[in-house]
Amino acid sequence: MKMVIFGGGSSYTPELVDGLIQRHADFPVSELALLDINEQRLETLAGLSRRMLARAGLPVAVTGTTDRARALDGATYVNSVIRVGGMEARIRDERVPLQHGVIGQETTGPGGMMKALRTIPVLLGLARDMERLCPDAWLINYTNPSGIMAEALGKHTRTPFVGLCNGPDGWIAAVLQAMQVPPERAVVDWLGLNHLGYVTRVWVDGHDATEQAVEAAAEHWRLAPDLIRTLGVIPCSYLAYYYHQPRLVEEARQPGHRTRGEVVREMEAELLRQYADPGLASKPDLLSQRGGGGYSEMAFNVMLALHHNRPTRQISQVLNQGALDDLPADASVEVPCLVDARGPRPLRMGAVPLAIRGLVQAVKAYESLTVQAAVEGSRRLALQALLAHPLVPSWEEAVALLDDLLEANRQWIPWA
Amino acid sequence: MKMVIFGGGSSYTPELVDGLIQRHADFPVSELALLDINEQRLETLAGLSRRMLARAGLPVAVTGTTDRARALDGATYVNSVIRVGGMEARIRDERVPLQHGVIGQETTGPGGMMKALRTIPVLLGLARDMERLCPDAWLINYTNPSGIMAEALGKHTRTPFVGLCNGPDGWIAAVLQAMQVPPERAVVDWLGLNHLGYVTRVWVDGHDATEQAVEAAAEHWRLAPDLIRTLGVIPCSYLAYYYHQPRLVEEARQPGHRTRGEVVREMEAELLRQYADPGLASKPDLLSQRGGGGYSEMAFNVMLALHHNRPTRQISQVLNQGALDDLPADASVEVPCLVDARGPRPLRMGAVPLAIRGLVQAVKAYESLTVQAAVEGSRRLALQALLAHPLVPSWEEAVALLDDLLEANRQWIPWA
Amino acid sequence: MKMVIFGGGSSYTPELVDGLIQRHADFPVSELALLDINEQRLETLAGLSRRMLARAGLPVAVTGTTDRARALDGATYVNSVIRVGGMEARIRDERVPLQHGVIGQETTGPGGMMKALRTIPVLLGLARDMERLCPDAWLINYTNPSGIMAEALGKHTRTPFVGLCNGPDGWIAAVLQAMQVPPERAVVDWLGLNHLGYVTRVWVDGHDATEQAVEAAAEHWRLAPDLIRTLGVIPCSYLAYYYHQPRLVEEARQPGHRTRGEVVREMEAELLRQYADPGLASKPDLLSQRGGGGYSEMAFNVMLALHHNRPTRQISQVLNQGALDDLPADASVEVPCLVDARGPRPLRMGAVPLAIRGLVQAVKAYESLTVQAAVEGSRRLALQALLAHPLVPSWEEAVALLDDLLEANRQWIPWA
Amino acid sequence: MKMVIFGGGSSYTPELVDGLIQRHADFPVSELALLDINEQRLETLAGLSRRMLARAGLPVAVTGTTDRARALDGATYVNSVIRVGGMEARIRDERVPLQHGVIGQETTGPGGMMKALRTIPVLLGLARDMERLCPDAWLINYTNPSGIMAEALGKHTRTPFVGLCNGPDGWIAAVLQAMQVPPERAVVDWLGLNHLGYVTRVWVDGHDATEQAVEAAAEHWRLAPDLIRTLGVIPCSYLAYYYHQPRLVEEARQPGHRTRGEVVREMEAELLRQYADPGLASKPDLLSQRGGGGYSEMAFNVMLALHHNRPTRQISQVLNQGALDDLPADASVEVPCLVDARGPRPLRMGAVPLAIRGLVQAVKAYESLTVQAAVEGSRRLALQALLAHPLVPSWEEAVALLDDLLEANRQWIPWA
Repeated sequence: MKMVIFGGGSSYTPELVDGLIQRHADFPVSELALLDINEQRLETLAGLSRRMLARAGLPVAVTGTTDRARALDGATYVNSVIRVGGMEARIRDERVPLQHGVIGQETTGPGGMMKALRTIPVLLGLARDMERLCPDAWLINYTNPSGIMAEALGKHTRTPFVGLCNGPDGWIAAVLQAMQVPPERAVVDWLGLNHLGYVTRVWVDGHDATEQAVEAAAEHWRLAPDLIRTLGVIPCSYLAYYYHQPRLVEEARQPGHRTRGEVVREMEAELLRQYADPGLASKPDLLSQRGGGGYSEMAFNVMLALHHNRPTRQISQVLNQGALDDLPADASVEVPCLVDARGPRPLRMGAVPLAIRGLVQAVKAYESLTVQAAVEGSRRLALQALLAHPLVPSWEEAVALLDDLLEANRQWIPWA
Repeated sequence: MKMVIFGGGSSYTPELVDGLIQRHADFPVSELALLDINEQRLETLAGLSRRMLARAGLPVAVTGTTDRARALDGATYVNSVIRVGGMEARIRDERVPLQHGVIGQETTGPGGMMKALRTIPVLLGLARDMERLCPDAWLINYTNPSGIMAEALGKHTRTPFVGLCNGPDGWIAAVLQAMQVPPERAVVDWLGLNHLGYVTRVWVDGHDATEQAVEAAAEHWRLAPDLIRTLGVIPCSYLAYYYHQPRLVEEARQPGHRTRGEVVREMEAELLRQYADPGLASKPDLLSQRGGGGYSEMAFNVMLALHHNRPTRQISQVLNQGALDDLPADASVEVPCLVDARGPRPLRMGAVPLAIRGLVQAVKAYESLTVQAAVEGSRRLALQALLAHPLVPSWEEAVALLDDLLEANRQWIPWA
Repeated sequence: MKMVIFGGGSSYTPELVDGLIQRHADFPVSELALLDINEQRLETLAGLSRRMLARAGLPVAVTGTTDRARALDGATYVNSVIRVGGMEARIRDERVPLQHGVIGQETTGPGGMMKALRTIPVLLGLARDMERLCPDAWLINYTNPSGIMAEALGKHTRTPFVGLCNGPDGWIAAVLQAMQVPPERAVVDWLGLNHLGYVTRVWVDGHDATEQAVEAAAEHWRLAPDLIRTLGVIPCSYLAYYYHQPRLVEEARQPGHRTRGEVVREMEAELLRQYADPGLASKPDLLSQRGGGGYSEMAFNVMLALHHNRPTRQISQVLNQGALDDLPADASVEVPCLVDARGPRPLRMGAVPLAIRGLVQAVKAYESLTVQAAVEGSRRLALQALLAHPLVPSWEEAVALLDDLLEANRQWIPWA
Repeated sequence: MKMVIFGGGSSYTPELVDGLIQRHADFPVSELALLDINEQRLETLAGLSRRMLARAGLPVAVTGTTDRARALDGATYVNSVIRVGGMEARIRDERVPLQHGVIGQETTGPGGMMKALRTIPVLLGLARDMERLCPDAWLINYTNPSGIMAEALGKHTRTPFVGLCNGPDGWIAAVLQAMQVPPERAVVDWLGLNHLGYVTRVWVDGHDATEQAVEAAAEHWRLAPDLIRTLGVIPCSYLAYYYHQPRLVEEARQPGHRTRGEVVREMEAELLRQYADPGLASKPDLLSQRGGGGYSEMAFNVMLALHHNRPTRQISQVLNQGALDDLPADASVEVPCLVDARGPRPLRMGAVPLAIRGLVQAVKAYESLTVQAAVEGSRRLALQALLAHPLVPSWEEAVALLDDLLEANRQWIPWA
């Protein structure tokens, strides 16, 4: 078994290596290939990975390479954690929209769109190489925006993939904690798009407890309590960008405000410094602040389900195929799936509640247009996408925003 | 044959009487009942109607009454032109949202929602009376917002109805005129919701001429030319409220700006003065500036199709029933229909183009929530509706807007 | 305008020439090309056509040719009336199944399947030539089995086509006559597949009169009266093959029984003798017994709707596209359509009544398998199709039947 | 926890008691209520159950009662194993159709229809009593025809239920055994209706192995090997009644042939004699020949999934809700489900393969008509159902069959 990390020079890599160490008995990887375009980071991360595995006494060969064909040769599981354009591009994604009074965010809004336009060609390139070089391997994707990536992969490649985001599991855990209900007693319906998902029903001991869940969340959530009560369903925290955009934009435009990208950039620099220390042979404490620990847990659960054909319930980004009404069959959605050796199969969630349906559909249209724009390399489709985005207030702003965004991404989006 | 005008004290009534006179040979109405709550207007309009019919030498009995049961007794066609709350309520619909930086408009946005909340109970009340008193009669509705009325009628009564708006025919005529193509050579696809419709395909002599239509419209339309080119379909002029809201709000907030309601209020006062003149026995010239002349033409075409079982193509507001993909079967849409003695049957238009799909779906969700709010008398659903409306920028604004709007409509929306 | 008759050596040709003469003012064809593989028949029919047109004083050039490219060059309307394998193949289609206790019929059952397998390659060949040689021309198809042809054309070519059968109009006329209701007062819903259609609703003067229609048909129909009452809808007469197969097979196996093909073969020989008479310059009386007079009427109505962009209601075989529930979008169905310059657009008929739904779906599956078998040239798919046919009683009979049928069609179905 | 067995006087009861004993630690039932209309059998089975539980040293109170309200009071899980009309009615279901040349079978064909008509009112009566008396309890149904029962329950009651049949698990196990593949390495798609299901895809170690599965099944199955190869999917053994009806009817009409009901009647008499022996405190060996051992295994797996909220994959009869294309949302189907505390949720299987689609749809229409006939007590709908059944060869036979079948069931189907 050969596991590949696409973007293996990432600061997340030690999380995956740690997960691998913990589950090696059940998931006996013999080779770990780190694939990246940054040789220095590769060296750092390959070194740390080797030290971690050695300390655990596990016979896993670690290679760090910039040669995609070499990395993919014989691969079984390919994990994608790439960030096209790096942290600098992310910070531009966060900063440029704010100048237009629109939310600046890594995955939501115009910033997310730029991230998608930069990333789709690279991820589809990987998937097409996998079709040729390791057609039986699974692509496990956590690269954001994960829902748009899932739609691009599902529509434009034959590579089997699982689209993952640690958000839904985390939000559901938080709801149940607020309700003081242990997870094993609850069944929770989740639906929507990635970073646009909602808890729509909660059952405890088989009885409907949605009202209690809404009330518990109203008291503990980032969004206005009465908003949650009005909706009657629980929005994931990213929905704050939609329901509270003016306030969040104002906050983000305060002098001295640092974007998340700016915070993380600093943290990553420190992490990489620590990783390079030849005395370090385990995850440093700082990594837990980076976020994303849940990814490793979730990724291994999925890989174990695939590998051992163990039916496992997992929220995932998949092509809709009838799971949600009134969305196309080939649009990606985020719903509970049953994962086994055949990969994720969506459970039917039915109608999207009317109070949130229009927003889900509108953002879906934007996402599908973004995939199409990236695949065709079309500025006109990109403009259609931005105009379709609910956070963009007018045609005039869409035009102005797109000009600035594409200018800031000229290196990565050559057709613009 | 007995024709009823619900809201017969309206300034439109002479248009319908004029239409009746022109088509009497083909559509031999023997009684015309004007039904209204305003006795003075009834007297004025009944008088003018009698003079017009007398001058034409037609044996049509005219009654003006405030007694609904009397008016509906024996009715064959009931035309609804009511305006619940009158012109004063309309002006508040236009003014209140502007104070919140949101478009103020009779049918689009929060103003349209208030009009719907005022009107649905009255129109459903009429339809239920028709179920009892004249179950074979057709309700021909032009009361706005026509699409929301169609959904309320289709979901909550069994009265057969036709939902009409003279917009689509007018916009299509304008497109063809801009193309210099005579209508008989063209087939035009139209789809969307009422006041949210689009020309999506144009064929001339059986060949696709959509690009030429887009180009012709770009040069002659109220919306930005490049917007139309980017969309690749032609939005109806009401779409300006969505694509250009900030600019239109700014214009409407200029000192001295009069809303359409304010302009029409003055015109109506003058019209009613003229109607009361015992020497007048025809439509006055001023009426043509009031707008809505097309309604009479269209309404009689439809009534003739119903009466004579003449298959006629007519754009109408109907329950979707599969005409448009990814919208519920019982949601109203605006599409070409074949009308015969069985009423309108939608032609399948298929997928809503992706560039406009999200907007259509989002406004549809708002409309369906509005119907539900009116039928259940629920402030919470009204808040869901306003929050779902693409022109409302945030939860905070939705709450503030609803407070002010319901305050201004306390007389008409008692549950608020 | 150039009109082509594919199979122009057919005995039907004078019907079309007669229709052309009657409508020439409204439908000014300048050239009529008869295309056939039988030179002698071409000569006969071209001669008669010229004499008929000359007598009418119309300047229409008539050409008879075996050269498809020459015939299609410049064509506007191409009418297909071909019969691949001729009357001898039809008679084998009728005779072979009877030996297995299964109905022998030109369009229904195993015989119809053989006709489809012989015809699909030829008709698709024509349609593909039309794509190249006259891409704007319409293909008007009456070649049977018309529903299967429509599915083959709709799935496998881009040539615009109209699938026609004179059955539905005739059966509806018969129902209304039995009800003593003039057609202009009725609206009739028709749905199903070709030669598997049903009158499902009748309205007279806008009121539901389905029960009266069922009662009237029960008294005047080829099927058992109580069967029609039990179904509550009116099956077309071909449904007798499904509901009364054992009796009809027994009748057809009586000594001395002649199949319809055997009767028509004799009639056609006589017709061709008469056509060859240089003194004949009009349709002979005998032709009216041949059947199919309605085709000319219907075909010209459709060609006029196409040519003049006149919206016309016409039952037609079209891809389903959501017109009937629970059948695939790309399966052909038979429903009322609105025909204009863009061709036929199906009216949505909704759910197939449960009493007939399973039969319609089962025959549809057989039809789709037949199209696939013909296109792929696959004996296995042909066996799947026959096994799926409701009239074939078992696997064992399906195998035996297919062997005999393909043996009898070796010349026309080379892959078998 | 109180477990009820509806039809607790059944010879199956010791299987369920045995299952209960084996899983008591994980599924701590405190009361077992046997509910039946036969007091003598109740006494026998309650006695044996008490002896079995006593021998196992388990503190489970056993009650035998004919009082439904008493049995349901406080119930948690209600298992239905009733047989309305008893074995005598079953034998008539098997014998009457044979006289008409149609298969006689407990669940398939006209016999199954009679069983459904007898059983639906009783099972719906139970479910409605459960709505009132124990609204949180689950109904676990194995009473045949299980798919028709599921549709009746799903359409006409609010009682939560799980529809079970041990067939699919058994057939899948047989396929994998024929392939020599251990179950944990395989993922198997199953779809259709109850006793009309098919293995449509098999993956082994994540790779498609459907062709090997078909080949393995072809060699080991009750149906013709080439039939299975031709279909490309593996029919469950009940499909022999459809594909090989003439042969099976002939076999069943041989002199001396005993129906399955006749064989089981004898076995049951012997079982009941053994059960009555006060010295017996365990399942007798003979019970394993009765069949249905798998039911206990499956039923407890499902009850454990419900009770402990343990996600479990289980093929079940559920309302379709989009799991299979081209079947109504409220029609029951048989597909893999994920069962947790919320009950079974179908996994989407998508399109039914074309080679079997028509048969599945046709039988589904028959089943839905049967449910409607039973609920409305309508002979006309029963006739529609029988006419819609693919095994009934004509209208004439449908009428004759129905007369004889209803005559034989006069006691149980009073409306007939």
